[in-house]
Parts: sequence; C-alpha cells; structure tokens
Amino acid sequence: MTAPRFLIVADGDFEAMTSKTANSVIRFLPDRTVGVLDRQKAGRTAQDVLGFGGALPVVGSMREGLALGPTAVLIGIAPQGGRMPGEWRAWLAEALDHGCDLWSGLHTFLGDDPLLAEKARTMGRKIFDLRRPPADLPIASGLAKSVEPLVVLTVGTDCNVGKMTAQLRLTRRLNDRGVRTRFVATGQTGIMIEGWGIAVDAVVADFIAGAAERLVLEGAVGADVVLVEGQGSINHPGYSGVTLGLLHGACPDALILCHQSTREYIGDYRQAAWLRIPPLTEYVRLYETIGAAVHPMKVVGISLNTYDLPEDLARRACEVAARETGLPATDPVRFDPDPLVDAVLSARTRRDRARRAG
Amino acid sequence: MTAPRFLIVADGDFEAMTSKTANSVIRFLPDRTVGVLDRQKAGRTAQDVLGFGGALPVVGSMREGLALGPTAVLIGIAPQGGRMPGEWRAWLAEALDHGCDLWSGLHTFLGDDPLLAEKARTMGRKIFDLRRPPADLPIASGLAKSVEPLVVLTVGTDCNVGKMTAQLRLTRRLNDRGVRTRFVATGQTGIMIEGWGIAVDAVVADFIAGAAERLVLEGAVGADVVLVEGQGSINHPGYSGVTLGLLHGACPDALILCHQSTREYIGDYRQAAWLRIPPLTEYVRLYETIGAAVHPMKVVGISLNTYDLPEDLARRACEVAARETGLPATDPVRFDPDPLVDAVLSARTRRDRARRAG
Repeated sequence: MTAPRFLIVADGDFEAMTSKTANSVIRFLPDRTVGVLDRQKAGRTAQDVLGFGGALPVVGSMREGLALGPTAVLIGIAPQGGRMPGEWRAWLAEALDHGCDLWSGLHTFLGDDPLLAEKARTMGRKIFDLRRPPADLPIASGLAKSVEPLVVLTVGTDCNVGKMTAQLRLTRRLNDRGVRTRFVATGQTGIMIEGWGIAVDAVVADFIAGAAERLVLEGAVGADVVLVEGQGSINHPGYSGVTLGLLHGACPDALILCHQSTREYIGDYRQAAWLRIPPLTEYVRLYETIGAAVHPMKVVGISLNTYDLPEDLARRACEVAARETGLPATDPVRFDPDPLVDAVLSARTRRDRARRAG
Repeated sequence: MTAPRFLIVADGDFEAMTSKTANSVIRFLPDRTVGVLDRQKAGRTAQDVLGFGGALPVVGSMREGLALGPTAVLIGIAPQGGRMPGEWRAWLAEALDHGCDLWSGLHTFLGDDPLLAEKARTMGRKIFDLRRPPADLPIASGLAKSVEPLVVLTVGTDCNVGKMTAQLRLTRRLNDRGVRTRFVATGQTGIMIEGWGIAVDAVVADFIAGAAERLVLEGAVGADVVLVEGQGSINHPGYSGVTLGLLHGACPDALILCHQSTREYIGDYRQAAWLRIPPLTEYVRLYETIGAAVHPMKVVGISLNTYDLPEDLARRACEVAARETGLPATDPVRFDPDPLVDAVLSARTRRDRARRAG
C-alpha cells in the first residue's frame, strides 16, 4: 500500500510528556504527518509545543485537519486504560466519510464500534487496531534465551520515560556502525513506527511472556543485536505484570535502564504522592535480581530523558547517574548515544565469549 | 438456581498432580460431584486415583457419565495455554442435548463455539465460561493498600503447588475461630468453588492488577481477614507477569509461601530441565523485595504440599522448611493448619499496631 499521511488526534492533551504516541510519530515519521488536532493548542506548531517537529500545524477541528490532505487519522494519545473519549467518535466517522483510514492503539478497538465498522465497510476504508493481539499466542517456552543475537531490553523507572525512543536511537546508531539490528516493537506506538510487533499490554495475561518470546524469535532472524522496546516499570502498581512478563519472556542478555531525570514519583499516582521513585541503584538491583530468576541479565547502561532541564543540568544529571551506578549514562536523544552503543557492543563480546567458554 | 451436580471431564489426565480443577472440585464440593470422565482411569474411583474423594466413580464415556444424573458438565483439566482438545466438542454437544449446563475455565470460551452456543440456546441451557473477564476493569489505583482487613496472599515456588487449597484450609480454620474471612478467587477453580471471582490470568495484561484490586475491595467488605488465592510463581517464565500483577494489585500485608516438597524443577519446563527451584529463603527474598517496591509485605509462613511423601518424611520436610526460613511451616491439608492460622492472626495484630502507631 502507499505510505499513509497521518492527521494525528491528540485533543486536549498535545504536550511534551503526555501525547506519547503523537510525539513519537512526529519524531520518527515526520514525512508521513500532516497535522495534529488539539482544540487547546490550535494555531500553534509542533515545534512550539514539543520543541521539535518544525512547522507541522495544530488545528482545532476535524474539518481543518481533513483539509490538510491526510489519508489516515491516527489516535495520538493513550489515556490511562486506553479507552477513547466518547466525543471522538463523531470525528472518526467524519474522517471515514472523507475517505481516511483509522489507526488506533487504544484498548477499545475501533473496529468493534458498529457505527465506525459499518462506515469503514461502506467507504472501503481500513481500521487498524494496533493493540489487537494475534490469535494463538503461545505460553512462553524459554526459546528466547537461546537465540544467536544479543537481546537488549530497555527497562524503566516508570512509564513514559523514553524506553522506546532510546531503543530506536540505539538501533539507528548501531546500524550506522554496520551492526545488523532488529527493533522489536511491543507497544502501539512502536508498531506504528516499525510496521510490525505485538502490543504486549493488550494480550491475555497468561500470554505476555509468550508474545515477547515470539517477537524475539522473529526479530532474531538475520540480526546481530535485537533491541526490544520495554514497557511499564517493575514497581508500577498498575503495569508491573506486563513489565515482568516481557522481561521473562524476552530473556534479554542486557538491559538499558531508562529514567526521566526530574521525575520524583511514579507518574500515574503522582496526585496521591504515592510511590516515590527509588534510586537508580535500587532499580538495577530489582531488575537484575528478578530477571536473573529466569535468565542471567545485566543492566549495561543508563538512558536519561532530560528534555525539561537546561543543558548544563542535563549533562550534570548524566554524570551523577554514571557515578551513582558505575555505568555509562547519557541522554541518547539530546547528547551522543555512543556510550550506550559501546556498552551494548561490549555486552555482545562478553556474552559471546561466555558462550564459547561455557 | 438449584445447586448443580457435576460430571467432571478430565479425560486422559485424571491424576493427583495434573487434573487440578477436577481434584479441587472433588475435594471442596464432594456433595455436588457425580463422577469423572477419563477413558484411561475408567472403572476406578476418585479414592483409588487421588487418595481422597471416596467412591466417586470414573467412567469411560459421556453416555455412562450422563447416566449418573449430572445437571452440568465441568471441564476439570487445564491444559497449558487453556485450550480445549478438539474431540471434547462432541461430548459437550451430547451433554447439552441431554439437558446439562457447561462449566469451563479454559481460555477458549465454550460460549464462542457456534455449535455449542446454538445448542445451548435451543436446549435452554447455560454455558458458564469462568475465565471470561468482566468488562470495564480498572487500571489499579492503589486502593487495595488501605482496606481495613488484613490481606493475605498465597504465593508459590511454582504453579500447581497448593496455593488455592492452602488458602481455603486457612479460611475454614479462621472461620472456626470466629474470624470473619473472605476467600478471594483469582482462578477458574476457585471461582467454581466460591461462586465469585475473576480469573486474573485471563484479563487483558494491563488490567491484571486492576482486577486484583477490584477483588480485594469487594472481599474487604465486612471481613477481618481477606485471603487471596495466588497464581503462578515469580520465577515462572510463562506466568510471572500474572503473579506480579496480582502481588502489586492486591497489596497484601502477609504472604504464605507454598511449595511442593519433592519438586526440583519448575514443572512446565521440567522436560528441558530448565529452572531448578531455588531455596525457600531465596523465594522469601524475591517476593518481599519485589512486593515491597509497591507495598510493604512479609512472608509469614510456609505451606508445604507433601502428598507424595510418607508421613515421617513429610513431617521432616515441615521441620526443615521451618528451620531454613525461621517461619512456621506445615502441610495444611495433611497436618494441623494452626501454625499458619496463628501466623496470620499475629500478622493482623502487628499490622493493626503499626497502623495505630503510624
């Protein structure tokens, strides 16, 4: 099919830290994006709002958005629980009437909405529900632990700290160095960007690890390094089950710990001031301990998200994290990602040496 | 409705350690069970096969089973992955034709089978798919950490070691002592026995903890102690995500660690000799560490399953476990469950004291 041109719906929530899907599509697929619909930010540009994305316009209505010539409307925010605000339905119907496809990563499948499904059928348009899991997922069998490439998983101190973005940066830089990589998408945004994957948070709970295993096996073919997008956090009260299922199913050899430097509380429970984020060394201990209960793994580097710090404080944050953990630390979006790339390649050398010896 | 009388289908798999659902229904609902269908064990009794269950007959065909006068046919084995062997479909259709309801805890819902659904409709019978999750589950909000009763969760060294059975024994004994309890079922067998609950392994992955939280909030009403049925194991490569989601969503104060004394490997990966079961002290450390990342919790006792040991070795195993962990240890099915009951009541006193002080 022709590559789609997206109008992104992020109504009321187009922000640097909340409209995660919108922002990543703008960052990684700039040539496929025609505009953003957010009534609150209408009249501004992506650059104004996010600090990147250039002149991409923000519009205040579906009519204005459709005038920008999209071939698809993409849901660009992920509300807690993944359910769609009711009023969007009329907009999506309007988009279908106008000849657009729909792309969504919500837990509530657009294709199950009778009105939208019928309209899509009548108009000959497609609804892509990227979180709909494949049928017949397996229970994890442990096969991922034996694949030939090094498996790297990003893990986090919280949701929405940059686990996917870090992994995409590393993938690109490893490719620049001639390493054969495969990025493995485990969430709706990664799937939008990469074109394949499984949203592991949307599968039936017994199959989280099985889905991760299937992805790693598929990603391993012809790759030297498989870079798996992480999900959630091991101490996130709502999503830790997804995080651990992914950790045990993917059997990574190396972990990159991702953190937003200024964050003090787990974000989804911030208002109740529940769950202060512990030190990075505590996360290293937690992930390595619980991970190694199934497969030996080490945190090999720290990826910081410093988007809301001035440059001197951002560089300082990287130094502090490196000193605290004894690991290479950088913001791979803002600064040179090479310290993390080097850490991954060293991990591969160590792993291969250990396999030959053992 | 009238209490059902069950014919249990456990074909090819009616055994002490494999037909978990069948065995628990026989143990806890003996008056509602008329027979077991297993072609391999036909002609024997439950007592012969399991060591309990008395004269309950095992039959070799659906025709013989229906002659025993059941009002419902219950799927009594849980194959890995929860999917139904194809040949059972004809038997279930025969049972519907004969006027029986169907009860199933499989991941594949019987009610979604066009043949069975149509037959049930025609015959005016019901299909109970106990693993079908409720609509609109929440993302966990942390409310479970503040309920008034003590929350006790059984955790395991593996699947199928006795987490539900231990909890049901403790519930009964606490009731005998005048403590107001509520058993919270989190799996299909517990739901069959208790009549309510959610199979947390069958919900969409993002909602595991939310389902656990909803169950604890419901169970907390009017109870002094809430006893939550555990699932899986924190180091089970396939199901650890379910285990952790339940642990973080339920926010238990006290854990009972369950273990089958003779087991050396995680059962589902035994053939590959993958994953030797580490010492009990290692499990205590893992569960307390990862649990406390969200809510403070302590392992307060060890529940052993010694069904396959002679009595002297079984008693010895309890002593060794108690010495190794410094915690009360017993087999609550075979021996006196009071050491665990006392441990739960002590935990309640300590928790209440801490809350008043804090």
